[in-house]
Amino acid sequence: MALPDVQANNPEIKINLTRVGVTDVKKLVEVARSGKRPIIFISTFNIFVDLPADIKGANLSRNFEAIDEVLEEATSAPVYEIEELCGEVAKRLLERHEYASRAEVDMKSEYVIKRKTPVTQMNCQETIDIFADATVERGSEVIKVIGAEVLGITACPCAQEIMRDKAKTELKNLKVKKATIDKFLERVPMATHNQRGRGFISVGVNCDGVDVSLDRIIKIIHHSMSSELFELLKRSDEAYVVEQAHLNPAFVEDCVRDMAMRVVNEFKELPDNSVITIKQINEESIHRHNAFAERVATMGELRKELGVN
Amino acid sequence: MALPDVQANNPEIKINLTRVGVTDVKKLVEVARSGKRPIIFISTFNIFVDLPADIKGANLSRNFEAIDEVLEEATSAPVYEIEELCGEVAKRLLERHEYASRAEVDMKSEYVIKRKTPVTQMNCQETIDIFADATVERGSEVIKVIGAEVLGITACPCAQEIMRDKAKTELKNLKVKKATIDKFLERVPMATHNQRGRGFISVGVNCDGVDVSLDRIIKIIHHSMSSELFELLKRSDEAYVVEQAHLNPAFVEDCVRDMAMRVVNEFKELPDNSVITIKQINEESIHRHNAFAERVATMGELRKELGVN
Amino acid sequence: MALPDVQANNPEIKINLTRVGVTDVKKLVEVARSGKRPIIFISTFNIFVDLPADIKGANLSRNFEAIDEVLEEATSAPVYEIEELCGEVAKRLLERHEYASRAEVDMKSEYVIKRKTPVTQMNCQETIDIFADATVERGSEVIKVIGAEVLGITACPCAQEIMRDKAKTELKNLKVKKATIDKFLERVPMATHNQRGRGFISVGVNCDGVDVSLDRIIKIIHHSMSSELFELLKRSDEAYVVEQAHLNPAFVEDCVRDMAMRVVNEFKELPDNSVITIKQINEESIHRHNAFAERVATMGELRKELGVN
Amino acid sequence: MALPDVQANNPEIKINLTRVGVTDVKKLVEVARSGKRPIIFISTFNIFVDLPADIKGANLSRNFEAIDEVLEEATSAPVYEIEELCGEVAKRLLERHEYASRAEVDMKSEYVIKRKTPVTQMNCQETIDIFADATVERGSEVIKVIGAEVLGITACPCAQEIMRDKAKTELKNLKVKKATIDKFLERVPMATHNQRGRGFISVGVNCDGVDVSLDRIIKIIHHSMSSELFELLKRSDEAYVVEQAHLNPAFVEDCVRDMAMRVVNEFKELPDNSVITIKQINEESIHRHNAFAERVATMGELRKELGVN
Repeated sequence: MALPDVQANNPEIKINLTRVGVTDVKKLVEVARSGKRPIIFISTFNIFVDLPADIKGANLSRNFEAIDEVLEEATSAPVYEIEELCGEVAKRLLERHEYASRAEVDMKSEYVIKRKTPVTQMNCQETIDIFADATVERGSEVIKVIGAEVLGITACPCAQEIMRDKAKTELKNLKVKKATIDKFLERVPMATHNQRGRGFISVGVNCDGVDVSLDRIIKIIHHSMSSELFELLKRSDEAYVVEQAHLNPAFVEDCVRDMAMRVVNEFKELPDNSVITIKQINEESIHRHNAFAERVATMGELRKELGVN
Repeated sequence: MALPDVQANNPEIKINLTRVGVTDVKKLVEVARSGKRPIIFISTFNIFVDLPADIKGANLSRNFEAIDEVLEEATSAPVYEIEELCGEVAKRLLERHEYASRAEVDMKSEYVIKRKTPVTQMNCQETIDIFADATVERGSEVIKVIGAEVLGITACPCAQEIMRDKAKTELKNLKVKKATIDKFLERVPMATHNQRGRGFISVGVNCDGVDVSLDRIIKIIHHSMSSELFELLKRSDEAYVVEQAHLNPAFVEDCVRDMAMRVVNEFKELPDNSVITIKQINEESIHRHNAFAERVATMGELRKELGVN
Repeated sequence: MALPDVQANNPEIKINLTRVGVTDVKKLVEVARSGKRPIIFISTFNIFVDLPADIKGANLSRNFEAIDEVLEEATSAPVYEIEELCGEVAKRLLERHEYASRAEVDMKSEYVIKRKTPVTQMNCQETIDIFADATVERGSEVIKVIGAEVLGITACPCAQEIMRDKAKTELKNLKVKKATIDKFLERVPMATHNQRGRGFISVGVNCDGVDVSLDRIIKIIHHSMSSELFELLKRSDEAYVVEQAHLNPAFVEDCVRDMAMRVVNEFKELPDNSVITIKQINEESIHRHNAFAERVATMGELRKELGVN
Repeated sequence: MALPDVQANNPEIKINLTRVGVTDVKKLVEVARSGKRPIIFISTFNIFVDLPADIKGANLSRNFEAIDEVLEEATSAPVYEIEELCGEVAKRLLERHEYASRAEVDMKSEYVIKRKTPVTQMNCQETIDIFADATVERGSEVIKVIGAEVLGITACPCAQEIMRDKAKTELKNLKVKKATIDKFLERVPMATHNQRGRGFISVGVNCDGVDVSLDRIIKIIHHSMSSELFELLKRSDEAYVVEQAHLNPAFVEDCVRDMAMRVVNEFKELPDNSVITIKQINEESIHRHNAFAERVATMGELRKELGVN
């Protein structure tokens, strides 16, 4: 006996739907890499198609068939980036949902990288939040976005300047010579509030053959805060990190500007219409709330503002 | 001695910032209502301005002065909606950050409404997630958005149709007459999977004098799922809710369409360029993941598609 | 130049500390299995020792050395369970923190298992929350705990009984014979509210050589709710799951009792002093809140109450 | 027609349940205060009774009647603390669930206090997480617990000592005299990593007539970290907070010890069998993970260890 299929019916209220799909789908993703062991993530996917006014329901089990097919293939192919994986799933969705004109797939995951502590060179791991997104309209190129959020330390320039003034005054009161004071303050950075900062960059492209690897994005974010942070720090590593952070104080605004400059310098091959989102959130140690700065722009706009071609 | 002000400096990397501000700011909000006791919320605010390329840092303590000033006044004024409150804060931000061209304020909160259980008419409370957002460009009208997420029950039409077919077959096998079977199935709805659904509507307007009250939005969402849910249900209330839910099975897609029709019928005074977002998320009892549907459109588009003027 | 070590100092306020350590440490864990590919998790660890009154601070970087050492070895050893892994880390902590008398390590993770859909036998994945904990006092055996939380469906017996009564009355009014009604209601389960339920079992043992594998715990939880749930369900699978759930209605209380009986029958080798925690949480579709039931007992107590030896 | 009551049935598997109830119940709570405006919270409650082996299900709607009754009365009584409120609900639960021998109620909420910034004395608000718990066995006194988590800043003594050594060496190299160096370092604290810390204290008592007000607990936590934090800080306030934090560096261990000493000095009226839990969590700016310290003890134990009577 054939089971009834209510979803194929005609709905009473005829209206297009922008997105119909499934959210919070967890999948084990295995990404093949040439010459290395595959990377394995547990990823959380959201998967959508649009739905025309004359179809009652999207058959959502097809979404799972599309994603499983692609994930199966991803583990045997030589190299695969996560935004390509989302792009492949989006294309298959359009094949399976013949009524849809648009498909969208996003995923987020945790990614573990191996690092060395800065002084003692011990091994340690760092977990990074990554995400990818792919959107395809029938007959067009896939628009792919890839991004990462990386933690670091930020030290406040404003409070440090005040503490520096205080040190200057005290040394002057103690009859230390101006030249000595200046040399001292050049060598030893003064105190300020510092905290965990979260830097974020995403890059969106609508063309193939451009390699926006996560590792390049992560490296930029690592270098844009006052200092990197590490899960393991022996005493000499800790001293180094604290000193570095205080030698490079930065507002949320500065971190975003620094990332913008590095993105422009690093991704010279990206077309002008690529969409760049850059964010910095500081979990202020002196407040319960966070400080936030963001720039959303095309690569062309950033290049023009920064005078880089 | 004057304290140094690093934020007023000229930054090294000159680039505009889209948003600079503070996030996760919690505030006690007291909204006055004519003739009733004020409503008190703890709200979480995000507050942003843009920043031109030649200013190093936004002085974020000004954001707090702007919001505190408005919150102070809000408790004495006769009637105030939360999107008006966000709009007022956004306007003050532009006054205080003279270099900014745009300000944006959003807040979310929990809102408790009083209800009666459907049969025994006992009092019970319901907590609803609400949010508001206001954006203002210097020299333009404030764009205000207000929205709510309400929980309800959704029962799946697809599985119910299959269970109905099964009941029909079994009754036929037991030699019950077709007319009797039909009457029975009209009166007693068959089983299906059902679950908590989350309906969401937001309305964005860029004009004054339009009343998009939360209570009207909440009422629409309550009526668009298979049944409302309640915190307190005596046995006869529970029977009523379960029967109602099974008499009105609805996919995520159906809930969104129903909300769209009700929005068009309810908000006749809204201009065509108002932006409507409607979402439904079902926490599927048969899956670990959720089902999702969404429509984003202007009021004019919805009116045209639905043939309502 | 030797760096100063403040942590070795004598504190001013002399008081023992119950737990000193690090929380929310994320690590890539690779568990070797004989004859199979290793399982890889990202796990979140909390790691503690106690601290006597005369030591100012615990040197927390030692915790990382202990855990890294054990994780390194875990990937080369033939078979390793996650609670053994926590136990090994706890033992190393006591070696490294010579002043401590007690060490405690817990971890939680997501674990993906492969399954077949119930009717069409398609492959699908299920993500399960797992956790382990190990505590060791100097000179004693390690106390190990292992547990899992598994999602399933629960259908309410109370509302179903009311819907069944309604069906009976309507069929009687339609002059259907009592024997026919009874046969029909035996074959076709009536509607009720159903929802995602979360079953949880943990087992704590203080002896070696007892195999409390996660797979056995997960299997018990899968069988104790009204029905299992699946990420992928074709139409015939969905019909099967909905029918199963309605043929086996269960309160939170019933699920806990069923798990208790299965634990007693399954883990015959566990000593009487093993500590069993069993929990069920139903995300009620008719309420915004959850229903909850729990039993905490020793294996000996459960055996006695259930009359099983 | 009487509706069937499945819950009163005899279960098949006879086993006691430790806790049966509802979780995540949100309620508007209005606490009367003599001579002041009432305080209004949205609180989240968990409410449990135990269930003997021969009763199938607890009638959970009774929990709501008990809590509503007490909340109703709380708004009219002159003074009410939140742990009293939980205690009252627990007592009513035992009256309504005549088969139960134990009842337990806990609630958590956000509580807003008004404060002045440290230098400019501007008004600002602070949101604090509070919780209360009450357990009653039939025929015994209610055991009540009340607690709060408060945010502050902690500055690391270890990294500061290293930075101090560095400053000393540099000043020595610049031929500054030892006496001058010592005076300078006394007046200007050197840099270190600092971060948001979360201090927590809970007090459990099993007698009436003891006033463990939240305000006293919050005050102790405020004073036990390197500095308090504030939502609003003008430049001179920020300088003050940063300096204070660096003049009072503290490990997680130090914060717990300091809170222990203050609890013993503040709550002289508490009986020796009161149970005190003290915790400190630092969201380390140099790590992705947190540092943690905890002491759980009776008041008598703390008094003995600290030599205070």
